[in-house]
Amino acid sequence: MPTTLGELARLVGGDLRGDARIPLTGAATIDVARSGEVTLADNPARARAINACLASAVIASPNVDCGGKPSVVVADVHAAFATAVRHFRPSRVSVRFGISPQALVSSSARLASHVEVHPGATIGDDVDIGAHTTIHSGVRIMAGCTIGSGVTIFPNAVLYEETHVGDRVVIHAGAVIGAYGFGYRQVDGRHQLSAQLGNVKIAADVEIGAATTIDRGTYGPTVIGEGTKIDNLVMVAHNCRIGRHNLICSQVGIAGSTTTGDYVVMAGQVGVRDHVHIGDRSVIGSKAGVSNDVEAGVEMLGAPAVPIRQAKLQMVAVAKLPEMRRQFRILQRQLEELRGEANDADGGLPSEQAA
Amino acid sequence: MPTTLGELARLVGGDLRGDARIPLTGAATIDVARSGEVTLADNPARARAINACLASAVIASPNVDCGGKPSVVVADVHAAFATAVRHFRPSRVSVRFGISPQALVSSSARLASHVEVHPGATIGDDVDIGAHTTIHSGVRIMAGCTIGSGVTIFPNAVLYEETHVGDRVVIHAGAVIGAYGFGYRQVDGRHQLSAQLGNVKIAADVEIGAATTIDRGTYGPTVIGEGTKIDNLVMVAHNCRIGRHNLICSQVGIAGSTTTGDYVVMAGQVGVRDHVHIGDRSVIGSKAGVSNDVEAGVEMLGAPAVPIRQAKLQMVAVAKLPEMRRQFRILQRQLEELRGEANDADGGLPSEQAA
Amino acid sequence: MPTTLGELARLVGGDLRGDARIPLTGAATIDVARSGEVTLADNPARARAINACLASAVIASPNVDCGGKPSVVVADVHAAFATAVRHFRPSRVSVRFGISPQALVSSSARLASHVEVHPGATIGDDVDIGAHTTIHSGVRIMAGCTIGSGVTIFPNAVLYEETHVGDRVVIHAGAVIGAYGFGYRQVDGRHQLSAQLGNVKIAADVEIGAATTIDRGTYGPTVIGEGTKIDNLVMVAHNCRIGRHNLICSQVGIAGSTTTGDYVVMAGQVGVRDHVHIGDRSVIGSKAGVSNDVEAGVEMLGAPAVPIRQAKLQMVAVAKLPEMRRQFRILQRQLEELRGEANDADGGLPSEQAA
Repeated sequence: MPTTLGELARLVGGDLRGDARIPLTGAATIDVARSGEVTLADNPARARAINACLASAVIASPNVDCGGKPSVVVADVHAAFATAVRHFRPSRVSVRFGISPQALVSSSARLASHVEVHPGATIGDDVDIGAHTTIHSGVRIMAGCTIGSGVTIFPNAVLYEETHVGDRVVIHAGAVIGAYGFGYRQVDGRHQLSAQLGNVKIAADVEIGAATTIDRGTYGPTVIGEGTKIDNLVMVAHNCRIGRHNLICSQVGIAGSTTTGDYVVMAGQVGVRDHVHIGDRSVIGSKAGVSNDVEAGVEMLGAPAVPIRQAKLQMVAVAKLPEMRRQFRILQRQLEELRGEANDADGGLPSEQAA
Repeated sequence: MPTTLGELARLVGGDLRGDARIPLTGAATIDVARSGEVTLADNPARARAINACLASAVIASPNVDCGGKPSVVVADVHAAFATAVRHFRPSRVSVRFGISPQALVSSSARLASHVEVHPGATIGDDVDIGAHTTIHSGVRIMAGCTIGSGVTIFPNAVLYEETHVGDRVVIHAGAVIGAYGFGYRQVDGRHQLSAQLGNVKIAADVEIGAATTIDRGTYGPTVIGEGTKIDNLVMVAHNCRIGRHNLICSQVGIAGSTTTGDYVVMAGQVGVRDHVHIGDRSVIGSKAGVSNDVEAGVEMLGAPAVPIRQAKLQMVAVAKLPEMRRQFRILQRQLEELRGEANDADGGLPSEQAA
Repeated sequence: MPTTLGELARLVGGDLRGDARIPLTGAATIDVARSGEVTLADNPARARAINACLASAVIASPNVDCGGKPSVVVADVHAAFATAVRHFRPSRVSVRFGISPQALVSSSARLASHVEVHPGATIGDDVDIGAHTTIHSGVRIMAGCTIGSGVTIFPNAVLYEETHVGDRVVIHAGAVIGAYGFGYRQVDGRHQLSAQLGNVKIAADVEIGAATTIDRGTYGPTVIGEGTKIDNLVMVAHNCRIGRHNLICSQVGIAGSTTTGDYVVMAGQVGVRDHVHIGDRSVIGSKAGVSNDVEAGVEMLGAPAVPIRQAKLQMVAVAKLPEMRRQFRILQRQLEELRGEANDADGGLPSEQAA
């Protein structure tokens, strides 16, 4: 049974602009919305796309011109649209397993109330898990780990021994926390692994993406600071100490013992060398290669990374270099010609070039 | 018991060139083949390597000069050589588990005929799996997923809720489909995760490499088009719509909401920014960083990526830049010298440099 | 009960410099050590940091000036400090499972003495495992694999069929060994997968990082040579033959059929194209893109990679290019001015520019 536009306006607490009786059967973004669906427009630049799209109605910001398309105007478009999406496609009621009898839980593990351990998960000796935490299937939590409350660990993630995880942390599928650091010294022509006596400490409200790896410290912890969010396929090496509220995008690699301040942002595929410090609120552009300390508040780009203004000047200069090279050859010939004339005139003074 | 060259020629349906009685015990590529083995040569450039190698015989294209080495000539060397390899090293007969009693299958899951679910796999509520599909050990298929027929999902891959997988798709070990998109907005100094109401839709005949991650859309699906092949350790971010028959090599990262046409090729370690479109049949060279839309049929290279001809001119120019810089300094001195003379001659005209 | 500095000196076999009665309760690195803890100093450059740090004592090399801070002087600081760390924070006694009844072991698998198979691991048909090898939870070893003795395979790693693993190899969590190679040929507009008849052979003493992927060969093996160490999230493509004692850092990607000599080092995020050879003891700098063979003993940097001296000259030249460009424009104007004068003087000789 469809929902009317009027019902939707009431549901999201917005102002109705158009016929309240319009029937709606779904919610979808502009690029894929079909007739009968409601879409969203969060900024004025969407005006043309709204006009062109097949959606029957729009949830829009007050500053968006919907060009006559029926709309519901709200202050927070994304919150309202999320409500609409959930209305048409309700969230699945998640099954509660409690501690599944098919989970493999050590008898020495301590699990608080309302902990969910799904079938096929493994909880090692002396592990401590806080209340309202969910451990999905295939997760491996090795001995001595402590997990806070309200944590979610998605399927097949692995926590090596003594990993500490703060409250409300989310760890996505396939992430590996606490594997050995990549430190070797060569002895008699063979690489000998350094000590692996440290662990990983993840503060509260951190989120860690799928298949991301964070290695243990050599003697002490590798640290991820409170509120920091890490995307998929990121590498954080041994002994790193990442600050609070960082945003670290996909495929970034941070080498050993590097530290970051708070609110640092690293875009995709950035690489940072070992033993450097990235200051508070600095922003490292995608694919940059950071090989030195970065001061607070600086935006860096390029490999090797330099402040973004320099990097852009370099990029423009390189883009124009082939033309500059052509002009340079002309200049060389013209100068040669002029010098020839000058030499003819003055009887042939010796010059550097002629030497 | 060895196979004779004559028997091999009949087996692969090729023309025998040499003594039919030569005994063969194995098949291996030129670089590692030993005496008693047959190797392959698929193009004339291999002639010298064939001569030098230890193999006792060659399966060769008609246009390859085998220099007297006994051979079997065929039109499709790779098909014939694969037959030879399988002859000497027969494929393992795979055990049929049916639905293993050690798999963890929800009672509300619907499994068609001839579905294989290996021990230790997990199938969630309301999951729908088509005929002749194989789910390996440790695979986690969360609630509401639909899997087509003839699909293979290798060990420990993870499919989050509501992932849709088309017919004949292959998903390799450790791949993670449907984890949360990396979208945040800052509220009171903390990063707040965006809505995660979408899912991932994978069309027919797609192949997805080991430890590759494809994030769910914000409100709707992230889409992988029919016949597209994705290598290992690739990142496809939320809301992306990848076209049909793309080839996406290892360690490529594609940021959020980016779309590609059909037959796009991306080489290893390419990065593509968010919200751009890559046109049909364009080719992005390895390590390129794409920061703008790419038109159809264009080959791009470099970071930032530009059409390949430009990129190569830039690379040549940069390679020669240190020498150009040296010559530039000479030119500066020579010009200074000439201008000094000119100034002497005309009584010292003011110049920009002298200012 | 604290340990005294004197006891610690005896424990690590070092020379005591200071009050033997100082009580110690832990061991930590300089940046995080607190009062009551012992720290380490492995080179003279640490002198200032030691002075400033809160640690109550230092385990130091003979050549380090500890500035009056109580110390224990030893030849091998790292070995001694590791002993101290283990003293204060003893290693967990690992539980012996033997062959866990909750592991899924094929009846045709052959397991030597003292093999550990943890709960939830899967061992396929005809698998052969050597003595004193440990297989962690969730590891999937498919049919026909052979695993040496003294091997450790961490949770959720996956070995496809016929993978061969040498003695004392360590494979970290989530690694995928033997997935299909990424080789296709286009037939009637569709990508057709090449033969996947090969496997992966890993020699003795190799270590493989978390979520690293090594693809099987087309007809024969992909090979990792003895003693080679591979970090996390690395991609080694089909048919590669990696030499002995290589060090391959995180997020490196090596394309198909490439080979390396012995003692090659690749820093983070390096990419190497297919079908090239990297000579013995060459070093590839971080983020380099190798597109040609590399001779033995050469250090390479940049994308495309060139010998490091050239690469650094290029980087310096590019950094100074915007300024050079500005000077170049001045030069152009000055030359134009001079030529104007010259032309005025000689009656206007024709020049290339004027043509």
